[in-house]
Amino acid sequence: MSTDFAATRALFSLPEGVIYLDGNSLGPLPRAAAERVRACVEDEWGGMLITAWNQAGWIDLPRRLGDRIGRLIGAEPGAVVLGDTLSIKVYQALASALELRPERRVILSDTGNFPSDLYMADGLVRTLGDSYELRTVAPEAVEDAITPDIAVLMLTEVDYRTGRKHDMRRLIAKAHDAGALVVWDLAHSAGAIEVDVAGTDADFAVGCTYKYLNSGPGGPAFIYIAPRLAPQVRPALSGWLGHEAPFAFDLDYRPSAGIDRMRVGTPPVLQMAALEASMDIWDRVEMADVRARSIELSQAFIDGVEAACPTLKLASPRDAEARGSQVSFRHPEGYAIMQALIARGVIGDFRAPDILRFGFTPLYTTMEDVRAAVVALNGILERADWDREEYKTRAKVT
Amino acid sequence: MSTDFAATRALFSLPEGVIYLDGNSLGPLPRAAAERVRACVEDEWGGMLITAWNQAGWIDLPRRLGDRIGRLIGAEPGAVVLGDTLSIKVYQALASALELRPERRVILSDTGNFPSDLYMADGLVRTLGDSYELRTVAPEAVEDAITPDIAVLMLTEVDYRTGRKHDMRRLIAKAHDAGALVVWDLAHSAGAIEVDVAGTDADFAVGCTYKYLNSGPGGPAFIYIAPRLAPQVRPALSGWLGHEAPFAFDLDYRPSAGIDRMRVGTPPVLQMAALEASMDIWDRVEMADVRARSIELSQAFIDGVEAACPTLKLASPRDAEARGSQVSFRHPEGYAIMQALIARGVIGDFRAPDILRFGFTPLYTTMEDVRAAVVALNGILERADWDREEYKTRAKVT
Repeated sequence: MSTDFAATRALFSLPEGVIYLDGNSLGPLPRAAAERVRACVEDEWGGMLITAWNQAGWIDLPRRLGDRIGRLIGAEPGAVVLGDTLSIKVYQALASALELRPERRVILSDTGNFPSDLYMADGLVRTLGDSYELRTVAPEAVEDAITPDIAVLMLTEVDYRTGRKHDMRRLIAKAHDAGALVVWDLAHSAGAIEVDVAGTDADFAVGCTYKYLNSGPGGPAFIYIAPRLAPQVRPALSGWLGHEAPFAFDLDYRPSAGIDRMRVGTPPVLQMAALEASMDIWDRVEMADVRARSIELSQAFIDGVEAACPTLKLASPRDAEARGSQVSFRHPEGYAIMQALIARGVIGDFRAPDILRFGFTPLYTTMEDVRAAVVALNGILERADWDREEYKTRAKVT
Repeated sequence: MSTDFAATRALFSLPEGVIYLDGNSLGPLPRAAAERVRACVEDEWGGMLITAWNQAGWIDLPRRLGDRIGRLIGAEPGAVVLGDTLSIKVYQALASALELRPERRVILSDTGNFPSDLYMADGLVRTLGDSYELRTVAPEAVEDAITPDIAVLMLTEVDYRTGRKHDMRRLIAKAHDAGALVVWDLAHSAGAIEVDVAGTDADFAVGCTYKYLNSGPGGPAFIYIAPRLAPQVRPALSGWLGHEAPFAFDLDYRPSAGIDRMRVGTPPVLQMAALEASMDIWDRVEMADVRARSIELSQAFIDGVEAACPTLKLASPRDAEARGSQVSFRHPEGYAIMQALIARGVIGDFRAPDILRFGFTPLYTTMEDVRAAVVALNGILERADWDREEYKTRAKVT
């Protein structure tokens, strides 16, 4: 293993006494991000003002950072660009894919997808009109549902609740055989598992950066388009920074040459500065090592919880190859248990109706963290102190 | 005048020796933003991790900041929300407005609009299909072009090149008489001139925060919908944070009660932290004072330049009431002149083909700045040192 995880852990700022198993929701702060953001705010924005767009290279950040993320997902250079939010990128990819299959009208997805992806597809279908359809099936029924009327298969590879992982290589091949395109949501894949968008012949891929990629709250999303397709895509969200000459201020839109046409408006520079600091860590990491270590950590957690906490039922696939980088357990009182766990400094999260969710992120999670989390969970369940009123209050959970 | 502009100026970090007349493009750094962003990065993201969404109130920032911006544009409380970029907000407003006028097919705009607004409208029209049309006329021809086939009138109040200002009150009334809705782009209005979206019976308004509102590079946009219309709007970009119960993770989209339905994905928290610091300044300011002072500064600049630099031709309306908060001059060698001016520490910007653009922002621009800018401009034109090769190189201009 060439990646030194003790070294990467030292590059994160983790609060004393906290075991953080929610990096699949919001990654922690890379130590260098504090200084990088400070420099962006004070030296660049404060010191260079408008000239920083060129002098500090802000204008090119969405492409430069896109290439660094691209390495982690097996993308060709110049095929990934940053911007907006994941929901917007889903809309862009879907609209583009539908336009490339003008004779077809169906988006196929599954009920394990992020609700937001389904909502965005629903909004697009409504905008396009009555002849379009969003068809959702159970995750295990997707393969058989790829029929010749499908224009686009839209899937999130890793289920955000259970960690169940689709076999994207097989599904992409099946979709292509049926003449469909694929929009692949990598929100729980990028930085979590090995992804090979070029090698699997993916069409479109989108993802966010604030989970496993540690860009901070509200960091921008990314989008990949296969270079063979990008020149054919005419963006639905045709903003000025996707224009081939944004600063010519022409009245007519002409898309830029490649993936840049997926840029829309002015990108969030402070958020990208934080992401730069995170990518300095990711540049040192091999995804094969991350995956191997993630499986070790996840397996140790499953073994520990099943031995110590028999009332928790595994909600994730037992086969590591069928899982992403998270492990979920079910319990009817899952919400209260998670609140009690967080109160003891072990941060996971809860997803309705009954799922306790734990993310394993080798860059900063150790085997000692896993053992301590099991002990804490066992302590709560044994003493039933999760049953106290203070833990049962319903509150917003993010 | 109740606003103390000497006090507000002291709250900005302006580089020594720089006269900044480009706050209409990127506002300068509020001193407190450095600390506010630091606290957001280190104490909230670093210290609270995922729990900061509730503990630090991140989840409500788009609405809380929306209301503070709302005061500056005459909006009702609860009618403005932050998020995404201006181009995305234009798309949302346009798509919503078209859907409220299902029998009509035409978006009317003008050739003085931001190209990006026209590009977004073009993308939407293409997505909706052949029966829709984006019709553009010259700015002075807009009023007569408001015919009964217009579904939506989409205008940027202040022309980004010349500062020419539309009479929105009259145009809104005319549009309503013709049964059309209005999407009003406030990019060069919010924080620049007095705006009264409620009092003018506006339907939709959108704007960005990184210009006059000083939120920093890539700060989020905002959107206003008249409370009488918001409940009828079904969002085209229907993301999870616009859902009435985002954390229920339902498979079906149900828009939230009011303006929150215009939220899409996870908002950029670091950018909003910077905006919070800026709004602490704006909260102390009356827009009537800003407008009065802006006119004084602009008039002094026009008088000074016309007296000292006869080769520069005023491109902005001479009547202050017909102008926004910027003044533009034309010169065939405008690009080289602006580069020479920037090299002397007076930062304005250039817009093709021949426009030198200067923004007047009373929060931090003084009459001394105006005089010094005139002297610098005169010095360059008198000595013709703008004619040197180094200033004539074509480069990216933002």
